[in-house]
Amino acid sequence: MSLLKAGILGASGYGGSELLRRLGKHEGVVLSGFASRQFLGKPLREAWPQLSGSHHGEMLFQSDTEVIEVADVVFFATPHGATAPLVAQARAAGKLAVDLSADYRLEQDPYRHWYGQAHPHPELLAEARYGLPELHRHELKDAQLIASPGCNATAATLALAPLAATGQLGEATSVTIATGISGAGRSPKQPLHFPEAMDSVVPYSTGGTHRHIGEVEANLGRVAAQTDAADLSSARQLRTHGEQKQPRLTFTPMRVPMVRGILAVATTRPASGEADSASLLELYRQFYEGDRLIHVQDTAPETKSVSGTDRAIVSVEADPRTGMIIAYCALDNLGKGAAGQAVQAFNIAAGFPETTALELEGRWP
Amino acid sequence: MSLLKAGILGASGYGGSELLRRLGKHEGVVLSGFASRQFLGKPLREAWPQLSGSHHGEMLFQSDTEVIEVADVVFFATPHGATAPLVAQARAAGKLAVDLSADYRLEQDPYRHWYGQAHPHPELLAEARYGLPELHRHELKDAQLIASPGCNATAATLALAPLAATGQLGEATSVTIATGISGAGRSPKQPLHFPEAMDSVVPYSTGGTHRHIGEVEANLGRVAAQTDAADLSSARQLRTHGEQKQPRLTFTPMRVPMVRGILAVATTRPASGEADSASLLELYRQFYEGDRLIHVQDTAPETKSVSGTDRAIVSVEADPRTGMIIAYCALDNLGKGAAGQAVQAFNIAAGFPETTALELEGRWP
Amino acid sequence: MSLLKAGILGASGYGGSELLRRLGKHEGVVLSGFASRQFLGKPLREAWPQLSGSHHGEMLFQSDTEVIEVADVVFFATPHGATAPLVAQARAAGKLAVDLSADYRLEQDPYRHWYGQAHPHPELLAEARYGLPELHRHELKDAQLIASPGCNATAATLALAPLAATGQLGEATSVTIATGISGAGRSPKQPLHFPEAMDSVVPYSTGGTHRHIGEVEANLGRVAAQTDAADLSSARQLRTHGEQKQPRLTFTPMRVPMVRGILAVATTRPASGEADSASLLELYRQFYEGDRLIHVQDTAPETKSVSGTDRAIVSVEADPRTGMIIAYCALDNLGKGAAGQAVQAFNIAAGFPETTALELEGRWP
Amino acid sequence: MSLLKAGILGASGYGGSELLRRLGKHEGVVLSGFASRQFLGKPLREAWPQLSGSHHGEMLFQSDTEVIEVADVVFFATPHGATAPLVAQARAAGKLAVDLSADYRLEQDPYRHWYGQAHPHPELLAEARYGLPELHRHELKDAQLIASPGCNATAATLALAPLAATGQLGEATSVTIATGISGAGRSPKQPLHFPEAMDSVVPYSTGGTHRHIGEVEANLGRVAAQTDAADLSSARQLRTHGEQKQPRLTFTPMRVPMVRGILAVATTRPASGEADSASLLELYRQFYEGDRLIHVQDTAPETKSVSGTDRAIVSVEADPRTGMIIAYCALDNLGKGAAGQAVQAFNIAAGFPETTALELEGRWP
Repeated sequence: MSLLKAGILGASGYGGSELLRRLGKHEGVVLSGFASRQFLGKPLREAWPQLSGSHHGEMLFQSDTEVIEVADVVFFATPHGATAPLVAQARAAGKLAVDLSADYRLEQDPYRHWYGQAHPHPELLAEARYGLPELHRHELKDAQLIASPGCNATAATLALAPLAATGQLGEATSVTIATGISGAGRSPKQPLHFPEAMDSVVPYSTGGTHRHIGEVEANLGRVAAQTDAADLSSARQLRTHGEQKQPRLTFTPMRVPMVRGILAVATTRPASGEADSASLLELYRQFYEGDRLIHVQDTAPETKSVSGTDRAIVSVEADPRTGMIIAYCALDNLGKGAAGQAVQAFNIAAGFPETTALELEGRWP
Repeated sequence: MSLLKAGILGASGYGGSELLRRLGKHEGVVLSGFASRQFLGKPLREAWPQLSGSHHGEMLFQSDTEVIEVADVVFFATPHGATAPLVAQARAAGKLAVDLSADYRLEQDPYRHWYGQAHPHPELLAEARYGLPELHRHELKDAQLIASPGCNATAATLALAPLAATGQLGEATSVTIATGISGAGRSPKQPLHFPEAMDSVVPYSTGGTHRHIGEVEANLGRVAAQTDAADLSSARQLRTHGEQKQPRLTFTPMRVPMVRGILAVATTRPASGEADSASLLELYRQFYEGDRLIHVQDTAPETKSVSGTDRAIVSVEADPRTGMIIAYCALDNLGKGAAGQAVQAFNIAAGFPETTALELEGRWP
Repeated sequence: MSLLKAGILGASGYGGSELLRRLGKHEGVVLSGFASRQFLGKPLREAWPQLSGSHHGEMLFQSDTEVIEVADVVFFATPHGATAPLVAQARAAGKLAVDLSADYRLEQDPYRHWYGQAHPHPELLAEARYGLPELHRHELKDAQLIASPGCNATAATLALAPLAATGQLGEATSVTIATGISGAGRSPKQPLHFPEAMDSVVPYSTGGTHRHIGEVEANLGRVAAQTDAADLSSARQLRTHGEQKQPRLTFTPMRVPMVRGILAVATTRPASGEADSASLLELYRQFYEGDRLIHVQDTAPETKSVSGTDRAIVSVEADPRTGMIIAYCALDNLGKGAAGQAVQAFNIAAGFPETTALELEGRWP
Repeated sequence: MSLLKAGILGASGYGGSELLRRLGKHEGVVLSGFASRQFLGKPLREAWPQLSGSHHGEMLFQSDTEVIEVADVVFFATPHGATAPLVAQARAAGKLAVDLSADYRLEQDPYRHWYGQAHPHPELLAEARYGLPELHRHELKDAQLIASPGCNATAATLALAPLAATGQLGEATSVTIATGISGAGRSPKQPLHFPEAMDSVVPYSTGGTHRHIGEVEANLGRVAAQTDAADLSSARQLRTHGEQKQPRLTFTPMRVPMVRGILAVATTRPASGEADSASLLELYRQFYEGDRLIHVQDTAPETKSVSGTDRAIVSVEADPRTGMIIAYCALDNLGKGAAGQAVQAFNIAAGFPETTALELEGRWP
């Protein structure tokens, strides 16, 4: 079988770094090019010293257009807003597009609400597939434009989806997220300057303003509307543009002084019924049965367990004193939260085994 | 005026370190002795290299009893369970006792619930005063036994007290806490080994099992029952053994890879009414008016702002989409969360200006 | 070709973790067993949460003897002193032994000097091969007992070997090493407790007492005595028990608050001659020509470039004002400094391509 | 006695932060103003959240000229190059100038060598006093322009001065420095971006190019030329513009992932004689006798011991195997390495007790 030619835009950022690591060893793919405005014309190893021993280390960064032209599939690790027209360019040329930015994740209305402007390419929304394979695996099989989910959105969705599927999301659902600083990108900024960020926890985008909220509510809304609670496997066939309820949740992210990792802590109080931890865990195990990248465990996960990997660990508990349920998800914001999930969705779309080239084992310490 | 003789038990732990820093410069106090089983007979500078330049550096660690005998006031930075009889010994000798452990914070019933055993010295509970000055300043003036609050409990209480005072705590209140690792003490343990703890976020005591929950619920219950919402200053005169409602909340702490600091994020959904951020902030400003150690700010606080200090920063926001309120408190677990608050309460009991010897200005970075 | 059965002793420590990661994906090897006294009878994932998604995750830890009996090759990631008799047991059973401890690295005299006791199994020293492939590749081809080098020793040796080969090691050679804390092992200890170790640099084993000095001096002594300066490729055929000069150097390691990585800074002042940076770099490039795991670069390397990998980066500069030469080596103490190098030497001994299963590309950040 | 009016330029940088902390509590000083171009017209607490509880928190940043006009003494925490004319302006107005930049530390020739340009205000060099009190206390008593030493230069000088005074600096002296990242200032830069800097050690300004080398060689040259080895107290009366020998040393700094602190490791091999650790320590104790900010200890110091303080800890050892001496100095780059030392020199010049407002006790952890 001939190899697919894969190109990467935004290859000098952290998402790009992790795409390079995975696509560089993907057995069905040849890395045909990568772009970065900052490093245009320079060899890969200048942007990425850790790849100085790679056989790709001497390849040169190209322009966006050069990369798009040659590739069969283009991965976009570029900023939101700037990505939409590049995706349109790639799609016009018939390329498979895997967009890690936010540009094709939301329908027009929520896009306008959360991003404060009209969607720049609404004509492509109809073909966009939301690239969370655990929910949309069926639809991804023939995807041509994959909108890869946000890192925080992935964590919150994976933590809460089984509750949404079974009507256990209450009125007062809140998600608090501790997130590693690599999630803010590679460009230096004052609050991310080492002496400022070290030994401090800093909330950001608080008060229900974080843009990933729209994604999470859409995700859980699709789960709630389209899942048959008696047959949880139906949750794997959710349609991106299908029916949707509208759960509401508040969302408080905080940056913690670590490089990688997200821990989502979600709490909700079901309107009725009394959950216990054992049956909740059983529900989660059923819901994620067969998902190789989701590990359900009895206890709240720590982020180091998934650092550098494309796995997520979820757990859930009941607090009988308060009638609340607490659900957890740990993942690596650059792995299952970004590059790993993008390659996973690509694998499905391109007909490769789903975990091809993914990181299933982490390193410790 | 003659100086009070102050002694410290547990002086080789982190709480002890911060007590030494404050009491060593307290103008109304002479440091009469300090105890540590591990360092008995050794000079202070062996336990604390940062004090090798202090004039106390050559003083020797003594036994608990030696310290208690000489002192007028004894600070207990000793483990819960082991502290109660030492406090009893000090009280029998007529000494003012400032207990940083959990042993006298709870009434008998909640003590049994959260600590799994009968209270070892219930006869002293009636004279114990809960040492959170912002709520109990009036009662602390003649205290003989001060039960200094837990660090997480202080953060959660300060974040939510104004809401409790005005009936805005909903059914589904949850507190998520990011906490620095010094809160786990100075003894080495596997999960706190540097290579294990670094670059990881780890939930612990989850599912509504953390022992500080009892404290927080008692605190907020007193606020709710004893405050006159029309006169918020009444919240300063709460009686430790007075009337109490019983709010319920769930509580999820997670260790983050920083040395010091706590950030509490509390979310609740009031049963009725619609809050907006401006009026909530106004409420918080009124509630904490005149409290020099509490700073109310418009935005969610970061922990570095209070690192090394005895201050707490609180903030609050409404999320109008969900009807939820999110409240924040940042403090240093060893400062306002432990040693600083203990000295603050002592100052009130001993008649010194409340902020004597406290740390009002931090260092940055 | 049938697979070799590989066993790991000390598999719950950090060296064991990295051996598991490499041997678990080695195409010529099947992981036949692993031992840990602490986790005996428990599944692998209990010791290593990052492997909960591995197909080895449910395999159980066995006893040392069980592992040795089944394996064709045994890797010893066990403490020095305790390892020597286990190696002897494995050798008596005819197994290939790869010893990551210090037990077979030194001849009897230096062993007595640096470890303060007679060598417990001197009869095996004659078959031990020092497992630094860049110097001893030739000898390793038929090795039965590989003494894998120390992490600090590897860094210092790689930084200075080209100078030793060309007579440029002066009388006053010093090596200062910044080392990550994982090098001290997985057992919790007071100075490695997160709040103690964080934000501090701590020298240890100073004043020329660090045990790796003996290794480095032996390594450089062999290079100096056995290399033909006119034919640097001769440096690849050094005999472990061959001729040796005795250079002297002092050595100051310091722990820095990072998890992984070693940076060695070596300074020397050649007795005669004037070096310049360009010709020194040319020498280093020639010396390491063909070594896939050694990257020579123009500028002093940073440790992040090799984190998680089995590569070392070396560089060298002249300081013309002082006539001194400064040489550098960055490596991962658990990769090229331990598990990676052990697998590299094993590959040579077992006839696999030298970099089989090794980590050639790092991750960033 | 009336209070001196003190002003600070560059008050929004890290040096400024630490000057504010000390001068804000100095009993002989009133803080009359502070300047920052970035924060001009804004209140202090916007630049420094940790001072939101300070009574200076609402004071506004002014322009450089406004601050200079009002103050009796001006502290310059401004960049080198830009500072020289501001100092000249202050001196023309008769103000005491304490310059933390590099602009007046070196004589014209070394200034040209290390800074690559002619000195912009050579006419002021004759009145400049190098502000290292342990060496120049006598001269500082009537200083009008204090050139406060560099942080790395202070550490290297304090580690080696006793050896210079006694003729024990050999030909091959090297200093390796591990330095915290706050030393690189508060402006965000790519290599100091948290995810880049974390978990990495990075050499910089290597190969004998670091500009502090000129300072260290001048310092040690003055010690060597002007000290009477039979009367070490003579080392306290060194003249800034006095006789000077020219020792040579190489110098390799590396950034380590901590916020504050410098550890200097200096190695030298005396031309003759055999040192032993005990007599070297005795020499160091004599040399620094009476210096309250210098602590000589038996073992190599760790930086946490001095974090946040204005103290330095030095130690020294002989390595008898190699005839080398290894000397150490730990200090806080922002304390004894910058703001603390500047205030110390100011205290001497202004006639205050030398440690007024200095930080003698650190905090731990």
